[in-house]
Amino acid sequence: MITRRAALLGAVGAAAAPILASAAKAESAPDMTAAVASDVAHLPRIKRELVAPPFVHEHEQVAPGGPRVVEFTMDIVEQEMQIADDAWVQAMTFDGSVPGPMMVVHEGDYLELTLRNPPTNMLEHNIDFHAATGALGGGALTKVMPGEQTILRFKATRPGVFVYHCAPGGSMIPWHVVSGMSGAVMILPRDGLKDHDGIPVRYDRLAYIGENDFYVPKDETGAYRRYPDAVSGYADMMDVMNGLIPTHVVFNGAVGSLTGDRALKANVGEKVLIIHAQANRDSRPHLIGGHGDLVWEAGKFNNAPARDFETWFIRGGSAGAALYEFLQPGVYTYVNHNLIEAVNLGATAHFVVEGTWNNDLMEQVQAPTAYGAF
Amino acid sequence: MITRRAALLGAVGAAAAPILASAAKAESAPDMTAAVASDVAHLPRIKRELVAPPFVHEHEQVAPGGPRVVEFTMDIVEQEMQIADDAWVQAMTFDGSVPGPMMVVHEGDYLELTLRNPPTNMLEHNIDFHAATGALGGGALTKVMPGEQTILRFKATRPGVFVYHCAPGGSMIPWHVVSGMSGAVMILPRDGLKDHDGIPVRYDRLAYIGENDFYVPKDETGAYRRYPDAVSGYADMMDVMNGLIPTHVVFNGAVGSLTGDRALKANVGEKVLIIHAQANRDSRPHLIGGHGDLVWEAGKFNNAPARDFETWFIRGGSAGAALYEFLQPGVYTYVNHNLIEAVNLGATAHFVVEGTWNNDLMEQVQAPTAYGAF
Amino acid sequence: MITRRAALLGAVGAAAAPILASAAKAESAPDMTAAVASDVAHLPRIKRELVAPPFVHEHEQVAPGGPRVVEFTMDIVEQEMQIADDAWVQAMTFDGSVPGPMMVVHEGDYLELTLRNPPTNMLEHNIDFHAATGALGGGALTKVMPGEQTILRFKATRPGVFVYHCAPGGSMIPWHVVSGMSGAVMILPRDGLKDHDGIPVRYDRLAYIGENDFYVPKDETGAYRRYPDAVSGYADMMDVMNGLIPTHVVFNGAVGSLTGDRALKANVGEKVLIIHAQANRDSRPHLIGGHGDLVWEAGKFNNAPARDFETWFIRGGSAGAALYEFLQPGVYTYVNHNLIEAVNLGATAHFVVEGTWNNDLMEQVQAPTAYGAF
Repeated sequence: MITRRAALLGAVGAAAAPILASAAKAESAPDMTAAVASDVAHLPRIKRELVAPPFVHEHEQVAPGGPRVVEFTMDIVEQEMQIADDAWVQAMTFDGSVPGPMMVVHEGDYLELTLRNPPTNMLEHNIDFHAATGALGGGALTKVMPGEQTILRFKATRPGVFVYHCAPGGSMIPWHVVSGMSGAVMILPRDGLKDHDGIPVRYDRLAYIGENDFYVPKDETGAYRRYPDAVSGYADMMDVMNGLIPTHVVFNGAVGSLTGDRALKANVGEKVLIIHAQANRDSRPHLIGGHGDLVWEAGKFNNAPARDFETWFIRGGSAGAALYEFLQPGVYTYVNHNLIEAVNLGATAHFVVEGTWNNDLMEQVQAPTAYGAF
Repeated sequence: MITRRAALLGAVGAAAAPILASAAKAESAPDMTAAVASDVAHLPRIKRELVAPPFVHEHEQVAPGGPRVVEFTMDIVEQEMQIADDAWVQAMTFDGSVPGPMMVVHEGDYLELTLRNPPTNMLEHNIDFHAATGALGGGALTKVMPGEQTILRFKATRPGVFVYHCAPGGSMIPWHVVSGMSGAVMILPRDGLKDHDGIPVRYDRLAYIGENDFYVPKDETGAYRRYPDAVSGYADMMDVMNGLIPTHVVFNGAVGSLTGDRALKANVGEKVLIIHAQANRDSRPHLIGGHGDLVWEAGKFNNAPARDFETWFIRGGSAGAALYEFLQPGVYTYVNHNLIEAVNLGATAHFVVEGTWNNDLMEQVQAPTAYGAF
Repeated sequence: MITRRAALLGAVGAAAAPILASAAKAESAPDMTAAVASDVAHLPRIKRELVAPPFVHEHEQVAPGGPRVVEFTMDIVEQEMQIADDAWVQAMTFDGSVPGPMMVVHEGDYLELTLRNPPTNMLEHNIDFHAATGALGGGALTKVMPGEQTILRFKATRPGVFVYHCAPGGSMIPWHVVSGMSGAVMILPRDGLKDHDGIPVRYDRLAYIGENDFYVPKDETGAYRRYPDAVSGYADMMDVMNGLIPTHVVFNGAVGSLTGDRALKANVGEKVLIIHAQANRDSRPHLIGGHGDLVWEAGKFNNAPARDFETWFIRGGSAGAALYEFLQPGVYTYVNHNLIEAVNLGATAHFVVEGTWNNDLMEQVQAPTAYGAF
């Protein structure tokens, strides 16, 4: 009998053994025998309950006091998810959503995560926090087999939004990531965000958008293949992945997850902070009919934000932030402005904005009428 | 008998109906019944005649007075265009050129466009101004059928260069854009451009370059297909588009449109402002043998320009600006510095520069001679 | 008998003749009959011996005196190179390495290169310095046939890191570049690098990483083709190149060239300046478990560096620089954070860092244990 694990390792061995071998050294934990001690015992602790995107758990924009240890718990969930009318993936997720939930702390806080891999899962996982320092962002210290859990703590030293993702080694890394295992951390400055002039700014709402590129294999008729479990689709998916062209590029896990009844909401006069994370592939967010008033394109708050962007750029493997105050009511489409990816491959969300229209900003002077009529 | 419109809707329905449905809400106009009134009746008006790229209509770099309403008129032209020796597209254009003409106003002005869709056309069109606020950049207020025209006015509130493009809904959006329907608006600061130290700078010439990615289907022999009208090629083109790899990447509508007799011109000591617009796909302009002295990479003039760039980056769906003072004579090649796209797919222009060579900047100390001769 | 040159020109003629013709004008030298004289005869000269990447020749971070003429000599080497376990290319190289060696000078110095094309080579070559002004970056003045050599001098007027590459005209340009012919120049400010506040910063080590996208044709069994010489593979490689999807994306010429025994090295507390050059295609470097403390993303030192980047972006056809002080020991993986390109296509390097672990920055609070144990 071939066990699940043996089947998996067989699949990996066939496709990626040489590279796995050459990368192996980086995946072992560093020597910690003479480690400098941490000194967090005296710090206050707070436990945050994670919530699914596009929403974000309760948090203060300005730190209410000194540094804290902020505790989070996440379960890894392997599950089939439908990503389009005719396409399914054997998704791997943090806490059941794509992207995984956002964690918010302040600069100087300690983020402490309990990461759990339930025994019902099939695969080994871990977490690499781009916000953290050392040990592959924690990836070398958090490898959990199905039926295991671990606790990692790191100090939030750099304010900004950062990606986290699973990175269990070799070809498992891109496979787990494009199967859904990424999310974002926001480390706020203790005194909150500031604009290009250093003046404090606050957001009224936060929209957390994770873009994911999927590589779904097709059968000989051109229909998307569906697999009984993740391992069964591994080799086929590698073939599609290695061509670098995704079949789907979606926000929050599926085509249409942020449109229609699930559209994001705001009111005229409200400032929305849009966090856009992409763990693997470049993107270029654009809000149709709106702008980035203040844009931290690379997502790091020690840098002054840029202004007035029509379209901003998310480097693959990073998160960015844009603040926008809505000035007109209506339905705004938010896209990855490669319009083929936006419309045909799925990277579209909607903001439904309530309020009063302002003809000074825009006016339909003459509704469509007969050609040559004036 | 199948009418043109029925044929078109059939094509769309087959390929993109589900996404069209989910996107439909965003394409309706916002509620304007209680709109705040505009107050432009007292403002002076000026009418500008658009000119084809790479040139730009007459304009002042510093605003000569207070805000104005600046009037433009554009016709939409559907026409076959040859884009390479062996390739044609059923192009959709603003005013007959790819890109569409540039419109220049000053911050605080109102841009008022009469958009006309002649009865000889086959398709519905509209215009989405990235510079505008609300109603999908005007897209929701400017939908004109063949034989219709409309007038839209918006306030130019953010200085910079911005893309405009057709966006009639669903898969029509990327199709119309990659078929040629995009252009650029420049909103100058009232007191003109400033360098990284806030010192005013002026340009002697302006070069307006619109890069377009085309996706031309091939027949079974590998030759590019030619279609009797746009609708006939829709389904084939969608197939190519969805692979995300263009067959052609060109400047100003065709391979060679800005080389040879059509090269751009300048003199040593002149400052040229190069506007590079790409409505759909990332690009990375580079002037071989030159630089970006001042680069507004994301194209927005409220941000200080960067200096000395060898290559700058245009986010797909945006326009950028670079100012360069030519220091040496000769023929300069201007490319998208993915060199495969530049040379093999078409993204090359030339600047022919007159003046006196300066050996202090560069000198051929020894012309090619026999190996080992010194 | 078909000579090598005739064979080559035949190959080029078949695939790219029209574009070659339209580009021809740019490849001729500018008129220098009335050239302003250079005045370098009185300057001191220093000769630098180039060393292979990832290392860089001896140099001072702060200029020790006034401007100098800095002399370099490079041989062009055409040779077959193994780029992966199962893939070889007929590489074209500067000085035998991919990327070619880095040249370091200070702003205001003159860089003087003797470029030699040994008679054992098959092809014409030249060099285009993105750092230089005029004559296609020197490309129009340095065309050397096999058995020729030439000397070019240019003034280093803009501080930063810049790409150089071969650019002999038409489709030869992308072909030579993706076959390995690129490298980087660093022009340091005379008083050295400065941080975001204008405070001087120094690097303890320099890591010079050149990323190369290869397009290796496959045979009907899916195995990578191997060719007896460069010309024989030209037409096949063009076909792969024109699809814009590389088969390999590697650092320093081959999968694994900077891992295992060839990993980069550093100690905790040391600052490493990482130069990342990509002559043709975008990249997004990321140091897993580390950051960019100071990032000159576009590589030009007159611009203040950005801070705290998780991932930075290299525009295809440019070089960027990032300074990082290692804070934890261990093996760091440095990748192009398109993780498919990093792991499956080859863009991975390692830094092995010695020192003492600091639990304050990161601590494994609880090693993996049974699910539900706490």
